[in-house]
Amino acid sequence: MPPQPGAAVARAFRGRGTCRFTSAYQANLFQTRAFGKQARRPQNPERKHDSPTQWLFPAKAVSRALSGRPLPQRRSFFLNFMYRSAAIFGTGVGFFGFLVAAFFIYDSTTYKETSFFGECRVSEFALSPRRGGPKNLPIIDALIDDDDTEAKRAQKQKPRLVILGGGWGSVALLKELDPDDYHVTVVSPKNYFLFTPMLPSATVGTLELRSLVEPIRRILSRINGHYVRAEAQDVEFSHKLVEVSQTDAHGKEMRFYVPYDKLVIAVGSVTNPHGVKGLENCHFLKDINDARMIRNQVMRNLELACLPTTDDAERRRLLSFVVSGGGPTGVEFAAELFDLLNEDLTIRFPKLLRNEISVHLIQSRSHILNTYDEALSKYAEERFARDQVDVLTNSRVKEVQSDKIIFTQKNEQGEVVTKELPMGFCLWSTGVSQAEFCKRIANKLGDSQTNRHALETDTHLRVAGTPLGDVYAIGDCSTVQNNIADNIISFLRGLAYKHGKDPENLELHFSDWRNVAADVKRRFPQAAAHLKRLDKLFGQFDKDQSGTLDFGELRELLGQIDSKLTSLPATAQRANQQGLYLAKKFNKMASAAPGMSANDIRDGDLDEACYKAFEYHHLGALAYVGNSAVFDLGGGWGLTGGIWAVYAWRSVYFAQSVGLRTRFLMMMDWMKRGLFGRDLVSF
Amino acid sequence: MPPQPGAAVARAFRGRGTCRFTSAYQANLFQTRAFGKQARRPQNPERKHDSPTQWLFPAKAVSRALSGRPLPQRRSFFLNFMYRSAAIFGTGVGFFGFLVAAFFIYDSTTYKETSFFGECRVSEFALSPRRGGPKNLPIIDALIDDDDTEAKRAQKQKPRLVILGGGWGSVALLKELDPDDYHVTVVSPKNYFLFTPMLPSATVGTLELRSLVEPIRRILSRINGHYVRAEAQDVEFSHKLVEVSQTDAHGKEMRFYVPYDKLVIAVGSVTNPHGVKGLENCHFLKDINDARMIRNQVMRNLELACLPTTDDAERRRLLSFVVSGGGPTGVEFAAELFDLLNEDLTIRFPKLLRNEISVHLIQSRSHILNTYDEALSKYAEERFARDQVDVLTNSRVKEVQSDKIIFTQKNEQGEVVTKELPMGFCLWSTGVSQAEFCKRIANKLGDSQTNRHALETDTHLRVAGTPLGDVYAIGDCSTVQNNIADNIISFLRGLAYKHGKDPENLELHFSDWRNVAADVKRRFPQAAAHLKRLDKLFGQFDKDQSGTLDFGELRELLGQIDSKLTSLPATAQRANQQGLYLAKKFNKMASAAPGMSANDIRDGDLDEACYKAFEYHHLGALAYVGNSAVFDLGGGWGLTGGIWAVYAWRSVYFAQSVGLRTRFLMMMDWMKRGLFGRDLVSF
Repeated sequence: MPPQPGAAVARAFRGRGTCRFTSAYQANLFQTRAFGKQARRPQNPERKHDSPTQWLFPAKAVSRALSGRPLPQRRSFFLNFMYRSAAIFGTGVGFFGFLVAAFFIYDSTTYKETSFFGECRVSEFALSPRRGGPKNLPIIDALIDDDDTEAKRAQKQKPRLVILGGGWGSVALLKELDPDDYHVTVVSPKNYFLFTPMLPSATVGTLELRSLVEPIRRILSRINGHYVRAEAQDVEFSHKLVEVSQTDAHGKEMRFYVPYDKLVIAVGSVTNPHGVKGLENCHFLKDINDARMIRNQVMRNLELACLPTTDDAERRRLLSFVVSGGGPTGVEFAAELFDLLNEDLTIRFPKLLRNEISVHLIQSRSHILNTYDEALSKYAEERFARDQVDVLTNSRVKEVQSDKIIFTQKNEQGEVVTKELPMGFCLWSTGVSQAEFCKRIANKLGDSQTNRHALETDTHLRVAGTPLGDVYAIGDCSTVQNNIADNIISFLRGLAYKHGKDPENLELHFSDWRNVAADVKRRFPQAAAHLKRLDKLFGQFDKDQSGTLDFGELRELLGQIDSKLTSLPATAQRANQQGLYLAKKFNKMASAAPGMSANDIRDGDLDEACYKAFEYHHLGALAYVGNSAVFDLGGGWGLTGGIWAVYAWRSVYFAQSVGLRTRFLMMMDWMKRGLFGRDLVSF
Repeated sequence: MPPQPGAAVARAFRGRGTCRFTSAYQANLFQTRAFGKQARRPQNPERKHDSPTQWLFPAKAVSRALSGRPLPQRRSFFLNFMYRSAAIFGTGVGFFGFLVAAFFIYDSTTYKETSFFGECRVSEFALSPRRGGPKNLPIIDALIDDDDTEAKRAQKQKPRLVILGGGWGSVALLKELDPDDYHVTVVSPKNYFLFTPMLPSATVGTLELRSLVEPIRRILSRINGHYVRAEAQDVEFSHKLVEVSQTDAHGKEMRFYVPYDKLVIAVGSVTNPHGVKGLENCHFLKDINDARMIRNQVMRNLELACLPTTDDAERRRLLSFVVSGGGPTGVEFAAELFDLLNEDLTIRFPKLLRNEISVHLIQSRSHILNTYDEALSKYAEERFARDQVDVLTNSRVKEVQSDKIIFTQKNEQGEVVTKELPMGFCLWSTGVSQAEFCKRIANKLGDSQTNRHALETDTHLRVAGTPLGDVYAIGDCSTVQNNIADNIISFLRGLAYKHGKDPENLELHFSDWRNVAADVKRRFPQAAAHLKRLDKLFGQFDKDQSGTLDFGELRELLGQIDSKLTSLPATAQRANQQGLYLAKKFNKMASAAPGMSANDIRDGDLDEACYKAFEYHHLGALAYVGNSAVFDLGGGWGLTGGIWAVYAWRSVYFAQSVGLRTRFLMMMDWMKRGLFGRDLVSF
């Protein structure tokens, strides 16, 4: 009988402190090495199934895999390695197969058989609304789905929150609002939220149009909200009614009133025409349909350029793509267009096209991305220069004709030269302007509204000139009034009168000034950054060195701070923050409401009593500039980079995306681009 | 010192013939069980890391995982099971992570830096084509991408194969054709192939529109083919020129000639108006844009129906969806629409809508799916009845108005009653009719073309009346002439004259008849099924029992067979088979060409010399009927079923889909439907 080497070696290993559980295996391994030949020789016929084929027997393999019994060992490290790699691969594939099977089982439960609800309760008011208001229009006090569920029925007695628009501001508000506090109705002509920052990607097929939209009804379902597809036309502030319009099936315009307790205006902005003639020859990029039309036009130009009957000049014209406006939208569109032409066009279309294509970017300022850090905008310009995207700075478009664009360019000597550029496609993306509805509202509110570009609100986002706590405005359509000097002065003046003092003779000591500054910070959070060195400011404006500030000096001080405050940018980021702010405030107000009604508090500055003023935090800006991206982190910090930056840029938007569904779709689209390229198809 | 139980037990196990490799582990397992307490007690301080925490140390775990060293064992089967399950899960996730990482690495290589080709060669003829032909139009002898690659340059001397249309027939041909044999040009107004059988799914968002299209250029790239976006208008058969038209960028129609050596007409068909008034109030379902418009109209109606200002009657009208035509398209659309309303609408829209929706299917025959086996069409009808889809059989639409449809229905007494149905949406899918282009061609060819519905071809798919081997027609636009009697008789007559015999006195013995029948089978494969019992047929038609057939008797026999042959169905399946047939024939002819030109064979029936006649094999038909599907396998065989049949139905189309890309997209769409439902969004 051979000696028992396994035991001996095991003991030796144990002596060296190896883990108890592995020692015996290692001993075994050692044994097969040291006494391999002898040990491998079958000692009796029953040992025959001690062979690799045993591993392939599935039932046993599965039972071993799940029972936790160890995997068999071969002598060779390489064999073991290969075997284990195969096992990992097999387990991976099996796991994947398990997921697929699980999905199919889940999927098969999502097909519903017929479901009728029998009789469903609908309020008589919802089916035949009463008429009223200044124009005697139908007033929709009740909606046809008000009684659909228990939760919706419970909301009927809650304050009516009406939100106009379905963009970034509204959706942020809807996502943050607590359910059951308000009866929420969204009024918007479009029944979807559009993820605007990715719109340039959708124009060339990097992303699909549908990946960027989320139905408003889906967003509303969490808070049991209601949606009315209509366009806001006017607001009757004293009646608390919004006048909306909708075209019926026969093309006739219907108008009706939507009553509100709180109204949020978030209707966004329209493209700024800058008074240029011939904009009907341009494309815009505000909506999903714009993206579709751009895609079709680009494809149409490419196809026409392929025809041998198209002459040389016409082909070059068709392939001349002009982008007017060097902001993020224009820059990203130019970058995406260039990607399409560079990555996909060359594979499928005649080479001649690639050589005759030109992309031009017309910018009125001296740099593109002029709101970004200068280093970043220079990086973008260099990137475009390398990609042969023609950047025309200091240029203003005068007129767009169907086949050319006329613009003036200031040359280095400061002379203004008029130039022409033949073009087959023009995108107009030169900033935003106020929507008709907002203009109408602003006119109605008269002197309270002095800004020509947006609805003015106070720092609690309440529209100036409307009853306190009734009407709010957020997003592109609004601007926060920072008239600190006037506000504070009139406040102090009132205070002085109240105390029987003559305000003109009022003198503020440093301690008074500190109180005033604290008040300013609270009411105008945006001013806080400019109120850091109070003593220095005091010294600077106390020109007569009296140790006190008089009214004139204080006004001058506050006026200087006013002048330093810039208006908030018209970005998704700002709208999002404002929406979140309003939601948090509304949640607070709803929870404070029972206490207030108990104490019979109905009027007054409830907003200020409940919640702090709105403060905008700039989180930075980013832009895709063609196989690379720039990140402006604010305060002079910035990042630029290649493919990794593109992935980072995507990650940011992936994270910001509105829900699981859009994330899934975006991921699939990016995967599709990687695997199959962009679809060069138009319809 | 304790005894060496491990070794002893190992020996014992070995004696019982257990596999050598596992014995030691089992021994170890046994040891920990039998002597657990003792063995678990650390024997020296170095053993301290013999604890579960050791497993968590990643580097060691990875090295163990890959080296193949065994996993640690616990005493409890449950613990081992859990541990191994976690390991499988972890490995699965790790494997998945590995795939994701691999994809990212691949993806990062797909972003291309600027690529210019420098000067690229383009023929002068491609840039300024010569004029000529009967109408003195530009003739595009060369295309601008003829010199782009080596492979394309080599094709310039090859025969020019021009294919009109980009549907099932063309794409089957393109996918089967050998590269390098022909200079292929596809002329089509649409630059994509549309997977038509799934179009009803796209109308409601079960599938995305883009998942159903494949760019023609992508399909062409394998054979280095060319694409011209234009619409065929006419063919000059004697000049071998196709006249095509295209609208230029300024809306002006350009016409030019595309020269061909072989022309394949596969332009498909148009919707059959059946002379009904008011079809401008209907939607059609032929193209991807139709699907988009249907989706928007459905969504628009639903949104309007939600407004409280819409009265009850109007709401019911808006929610009354009418499908005219009970063929597969109509039935599948009705089923998909019902799914949308049943599965998705109920979740997001007011309940009232679900209760007031009605779907109506108007069918002129006595059953829907009347080309299918009767049991299947009955199953579909029962299914619809259960789903409360209103099937109106024996009904003919008389007129479609903007808000109602007027139709006549034959009741059980055979009386014809005129009825009205208010409707908010009507789909017209009542069969196909000939395109204008085909009518023009047929007129030009005069007496050779007698069919009012399609271009007639012989069994080699050559258009009757055109020079042999020049022009082919496949798909919906064509029909195969089975005029066996006339063909064979005139052939025999010619043969008789040639041999100096009077054809009127010709008598066919049974052996002659057998030869004739063999010839018929070869030239008209579709007739083979009716020529099985030759002796019986001979006896039946040899009325004078003379033992011979005279010309009159033979004509009668063949005429009877003619009458039994039905025309081929206007389906994707037929077009696909015809396309494949042509591709195989063209491949054969190309390889036979060198031998023929060596022997100076240029004319004559080269098709027949190279390849057999076309024979259609019916593979069955299938249709989705709302959470279930029917399969008509031909010959009275059929299958019906629930969810499994839906998966089977999808699998069939998944397999038939044009490429990897569309399969990936379809899979994602189905997954999306399962996970998130359909998008209730219109744009």
